[in-house]
Amino acid sequence: MTTWHLAKGFRFAGLHCGIRPDPNRRDLALIVSDVPAAAAGVFTRNRVRAAPVRVCQERLPSSEVRGVVICSGNANACTGPRGLDDARTMTAVAAQCLGCRPEQLLVCSTGVIGRHLPMPQIESGIRAAVTLLADTPLAFDSLARAILTTDTRIKVATREIELEGVMVRVTGVAKGAAMIGPNMATMLAFVCSDAAVSAADLATLVRRAAEQTFNCISVEGHTSTNDTLLLLANGASQGNRAIPVQGEPLARFSSAVTDVCGELARDIAADAEGATHLITIEVEGLRDDREAYRVAKTIAESALVKTAIHGADPNWGRIVSAAGYAGVEFEEEHLSLWLGDLLLYHAGVPQPFDAATASAYLKRERHVHLRLRFTLGPGRCTFWTCDLTQEYIRLNAEYTT
Amino acid sequence: MTTWHLAKGFRFAGLHCGIRPDPNRRDLALIVSDVPAAAAGVFTRNRVRAAPVRVCQERLPSSEVRGVVICSGNANACTGPRGLDDARTMTAVAAQCLGCRPEQLLVCSTGVIGRHLPMPQIESGIRAAVTLLADTPLAFDSLARAILTTDTRIKVATREIELEGVMVRVTGVAKGAAMIGPNMATMLAFVCSDAAVSAADLATLVRRAAEQTFNCISVEGHTSTNDTLLLLANGASQGNRAIPVQGEPLARFSSAVTDVCGELARDIAADAEGATHLITIEVEGLRDDREAYRVAKTIAESALVKTAIHGADPNWGRIVSAAGYAGVEFEEEHLSLWLGDLLLYHAGVPQPFDAATASAYLKRERHVHLRLRFTLGPGRCTFWTCDLTQEYIRLNAEYTT
Repeated sequence: MTTWHLAKGFRFAGLHCGIRPDPNRRDLALIVSDVPAAAAGVFTRNRVRAAPVRVCQERLPSSEVRGVVICSGNANACTGPRGLDDARTMTAVAAQCLGCRPEQLLVCSTGVIGRHLPMPQIESGIRAAVTLLADTPLAFDSLARAILTTDTRIKVATREIELEGVMVRVTGVAKGAAMIGPNMATMLAFVCSDAAVSAADLATLVRRAAEQTFNCISVEGHTSTNDTLLLLANGASQGNRAIPVQGEPLARFSSAVTDVCGELARDIAADAEGATHLITIEVEGLRDDREAYRVAKTIAESALVKTAIHGADPNWGRIVSAAGYAGVEFEEEHLSLWLGDLLLYHAGVPQPFDAATASAYLKRERHVHLRLRFTLGPGRCTFWTCDLTQEYIRLNAEYTT
Repeated sequence: MTTWHLAKGFRFAGLHCGIRPDPNRRDLALIVSDVPAAAAGVFTRNRVRAAPVRVCQERLPSSEVRGVVICSGNANACTGPRGLDDARTMTAVAAQCLGCRPEQLLVCSTGVIGRHLPMPQIESGIRAAVTLLADTPLAFDSLARAILTTDTRIKVATREIELEGVMVRVTGVAKGAAMIGPNMATMLAFVCSDAAVSAADLATLVRRAAEQTFNCISVEGHTSTNDTLLLLANGASQGNRAIPVQGEPLARFSSAVTDVCGELARDIAADAEGATHLITIEVEGLRDDREAYRVAKTIAESALVKTAIHGADPNWGRIVSAAGYAGVEFEEEHLSLWLGDLLLYHAGVPQPFDAATASAYLKRERHVHLRLRFTLGPGRCTFWTCDLTQEYIRLNAEYTT
């Protein structure tokens, strides 16, 4: 097993409670901090927000969070007042076992939309999970598995950095797979740290980290009802969490959180349903970062670009034409385009290139790069997506039937 | 062969000139009016416009148009100054054969982006096509075939109406298949009429017809570089085209043009690459038509909605969640949703329904209906799309390789 830097003072659990029919698939998880932690989150901007998202939004930011209850296989979305009651009950049951107030717990769900949760199984599952809580890599691995849906592998990213003479850890775990569009996706991500950071600072830096990472990935552009990124910091490594870090140490902490989120975000794009390629799209030279983001996102969400890359087809015309409908003003002569190191299109003029070499690059590399350079300003964006395959269609045509 | 109402005073031709390797695939077409016709068009809003689009935009609206030269298999897009020269040369060669000025001819191309046209083949092809021009259904059928790319069938819609005591005809032909996003698509559509209508009136009514038809379809939302709708009216049936129709007859003419465009647009969505279902999405009850359009378009472009329908899965959660990220403000309780006649979601609450009946509806019907009713105002929109299938992926992964 990879060496993970697990944040001190956190315990984890993951088990099968019965949301999923397959007894070998974990579907319930817990993250618990031994002491009250500062916490903040970023959530979907979908108008239709799942019940657990609403509950988390009511409770954050906070300096008193004791943990997170997570279930997979059922999103508890579009489930009306009963769904909201169910989400609150999940935190109440866990609170009873942990000896804290329900408001000190957060809740997340991911899976099928529009079905009520099987609460008897979930309640028994929560009680059992509390007894399994541990601070071991094995327990963390169980958590990482229990939050997955159609993901093919767990997504973990950790960092250890020194802050004010003390080593602190940033421990991230995520799930993705599909319904991944910026703002955000049915992606869930949890980042725990044993650094001491104020809830207000966490709220600022979690938003900034999301903008540069989870909001820069797209699988098919379908913004989910459940997207949640939670960041918890319990100060366990710094002893006295009454004195949160500030200034330069806070900046380094923020940078570590962004690194962890970036690694998780790229893992989500790379492990999207049916994907065979991770695609990095770098756009530079537009008037501002927002314009660069729009162009990158439009290319990332073009089914024609994604199928071409799947077919190892260096069809740059689809890329240029996708840029053209992003709603950003430019002329063809402002644009040059590279696939890997190959210049395909320069200042509006197609370049002679060896199609076999380009195709071989797409066939050989699992991680491919598109670079678009405009000549209109300093705006830039890096965005990640994946190719679109027949397997994506099969998975999504058969998801609930 | 279906009875088509062919506009008088027009002749048509379609043949194989050599753009495509397969000698059985027509790839060059001509539409010619015996007398100068009034003409107007609607074009892609992509910032990257193909050379023939630029040439048409320079020349329209006009009262002197003699015809259109069309080639398929190569889009003449992203081809720089040489592409623009090639497009103009196509009209010059045809003009020489027809004895008119090049500026009296329009030009369209569709196919792969970024390759220069094989001009020797195209020039010979144009000369040969002029000798084949005829006003017969067979000649029209040749035209209809010659403009296709990955379409599986020709798209023709015609009407015959009486205007001021004279029968006039509206004759439409189109191609679609993919890269179909509103505003508009690599769709080409040509509507010819023997009514007498001024170029100014044509310009107004072609824009209005496109808004309600071709701009309300989407295959994968990729707005092409080449989208073109041309409307020509030569007055041949009304004798003296110096007196264009006005008032109520003009309104009826406009309505016939919109009907023809609507039928062609639905044919394009139904025959999209790999599609097995035509999906009509009706949205009503938002604050204005623009909001309804945004919701309808977002659902139409959701890969998750489209794959669910392909899999005969009544996964209404994907539909509701797609509405939620359309950027339109609403609460769940404002929304009800029907699949065919089945109410799946009422005022924010999931309804009990028989999944087997819903699934059977999706399996049985080639044309399925989604209806979303909001309670926020009079805004409405009808939008057409298709399902997303493994065949779409195969076609687009293998398109140029």
